[in-house]
Amino acid sequence: MTDQRIYNFNAGPSALPEKVLRDIQSSFLNFNGCGMSVTEISHRSPEFDQVINDAVARAKRLLKLDDRFHVLFIQGGASLQFAMIPMNFLARGQSADYVNTGTWSTKAIKEAQIQKKEIRVIASSEDRDFCYIPKNIVVDPKSRFVHLTSNNTIKGTQFASFPDTGNVPIICDMSSDFFSRPLPMDKFAMIYGGAQKNLGPSGTAVVILRKDFLEAAAGTPENQELPSMLRYDNYAQKNSMYNTPACFGIYTIGLVLKWIEEDMGGLEGIEKYNQEKARLLYDFMDASDFYRPTADKDSRSLMNVTFRLPSEELEKQFIAQATQEGLGGLKGHRSVGGCRASIYNAVTLEGVKALIVFMEKFQKEAA
Amino acid sequence: MTDQRIYNFNAGPSALPEKVLRDIQSSFLNFNGCGMSVTEISHRSPEFDQVINDAVARAKRLLKLDDRFHVLFIQGGASLQFAMIPMNFLARGQSADYVNTGTWSTKAIKEAQIQKKEIRVIASSEDRDFCYIPKNIVVDPKSRFVHLTSNNTIKGTQFASFPDTGNVPIICDMSSDFFSRPLPMDKFAMIYGGAQKNLGPSGTAVVILRKDFLEAAAGTPENQELPSMLRYDNYAQKNSMYNTPACFGIYTIGLVLKWIEEDMGGLEGIEKYNQEKARLLYDFMDASDFYRPTADKDSRSLMNVTFRLPSEELEKQFIAQATQEGLGGLKGHRSVGGCRASIYNAVTLEGVKALIVFMEKFQKEAA
Repeated sequence: MTDQRIYNFNAGPSALPEKVLRDIQSSFLNFNGCGMSVTEISHRSPEFDQVINDAVARAKRLLKLDDRFHVLFIQGGASLQFAMIPMNFLARGQSADYVNTGTWSTKAIKEAQIQKKEIRVIASSEDRDFCYIPKNIVVDPKSRFVHLTSNNTIKGTQFASFPDTGNVPIICDMSSDFFSRPLPMDKFAMIYGGAQKNLGPSGTAVVILRKDFLEAAAGTPENQELPSMLRYDNYAQKNSMYNTPACFGIYTIGLVLKWIEEDMGGLEGIEKYNQEKARLLYDFMDASDFYRPTADKDSRSLMNVTFRLPSEELEKQFIAQATQEGLGGLKGHRSVGGCRASIYNAVTLEGVKALIVFMEKFQKEAA
Repeated sequence: MTDQRIYNFNAGPSALPEKVLRDIQSSFLNFNGCGMSVTEISHRSPEFDQVINDAVARAKRLLKLDDRFHVLFIQGGASLQFAMIPMNFLARGQSADYVNTGTWSTKAIKEAQIQKKEIRVIASSEDRDFCYIPKNIVVDPKSRFVHLTSNNTIKGTQFASFPDTGNVPIICDMSSDFFSRPLPMDKFAMIYGGAQKNLGPSGTAVVILRKDFLEAAAGTPENQELPSMLRYDNYAQKNSMYNTPACFGIYTIGLVLKWIEEDMGGLEGIEKYNQEKARLLYDFMDASDFYRPTADKDSRSLMNVTFRLPSEELEKQFIAQATQEGLGGLKGHRSVGGCRASIYNAVTLEGVKALIVFMEKFQKEAA
């Protein structure tokens, strides 16, 4: 048992800004002087209206969205979005292109296929176990959309910039790099992500959806026959409150967005911070012959730094010893093994520096 | 602004036990000495395994469930369950019976109809604006299940006991009286409810599902073609972690179940407590000619006490003055007006007594 907080490199759910946690803690029994916990107030109350409207407004300001976009909160994580996207946006006779860059892209593709939707996989990095981001992505101009995964949590790769898809808009799963950098919003019909990496606790997906793209789909007869909870238009019409939303999640997301906006210099500021953390860690490993990053250099993720040590035995020792010294969550995903440091928005530069100090020491002791 | 907590009669999200809130608050930055908030730990960690397994075990003990049942946590609230139930359990050629006792039953029926499933509404209390629970419910013995809503939050009615449905199992939406009393579990194929009334924060539905009933459905070819996140078998096989669950919700539900089990004498104890609260309030109103309960006497809910005053003007004053005196959430649902005191598990006897004192005073002043 320890009273101290550790450096948390978990891949998700993951570190939240300590300031946000303290804010939640201090007002947990009496939110905003209303005499109730934020978990006890009605989602139809003026208090909660302010919470959700503030989160929406901050998301819009940070991404410089104009009124062309909805900001929605939907339960079920990105995994439910994998199903809702083809369900809502691919009517009979329409098709979409998907790019496969790892486990989560593969799942998104599978959910479209389960529904027998017409999709094509137009690029994939499966040939080298997803260690890179495909180049020369050529989109069918008749496609309704092209689906990308901007950051691949498990394989440690990331789109540094987004491909030219002509007139075909991108729908992008950004679960693990949402709100970590500015985005060229003109390219997207929709971006979405589970909150539990850069934005808040698990249990809420944030969906940012272009209104005209939604309206075109919501008009089809097929869409009228979808279950109410799986229709984006129902969320859009009711400010994400068709039914009771995950209030605590939305509240926390709002606080994290506030922290990004007011304490971290917006998305431009947090991008610089994230770049600096990643640069330190990759530079250290590139100068070492002990730690080996697994992703191709031009495809490296600024969020999930995946790496190997000379042997699995050493990796085990590394993870165990790091945990003992207050550096948690460094184990790679159970499907790939190895090590991974997730350095999302809320992971501090101080934490990354402490990790590097530990890595230096471990390497010396192992030599 | 006030430093004091109020008496919270919200219909949902609603009051949580103060002990649970204090427990969450005190360990919010360092859960169980792990150096992280419970919102920051991986759902694949031993720490979270213990959280979810403890919640499941407590639910099973409280309801005296044997191994015939799964206890699942699913995002999307009861509203998503309305869609998932017919989707999973009504294959082609199968039919189900529904009983309509109010707004939420009506929504459950609508979701089955959207999917063009074969269902019959075998009883309804719509003729008298849902102010009673229908008697003499006759179920088609060939029905796959009969769907009930045990407690009607908006209209203030409740099944005091469950009808004899022969060999046809009941699927029951218990969103607003879940874990408020012992249940005859032999009658049910499934019971479910959003957590945000008796059990925890919004964002998690608890689903208790008989294994053989699930297995019979999961085997059909139609079920293999459902989106992964909408298949109960995926939740059952992965201990509710097919994808990242709403961890904070599950954690809080576990703490509330612990409170019911250890502090309130289990479901038998909490039932007595809930009966006492409701008795005091209804007895007071029955002796008054000022406050008029809206539900038929034999159909009254022990959870949501709906009532009217002599005029809408007086109701407005009543709600406003109560709020000022620290009695919150007494407004009826926006669709019906009037007043409502929701007296779920976590609302204290002290709170109900304070409400009655206020009601006496208000009546005198209005006379």
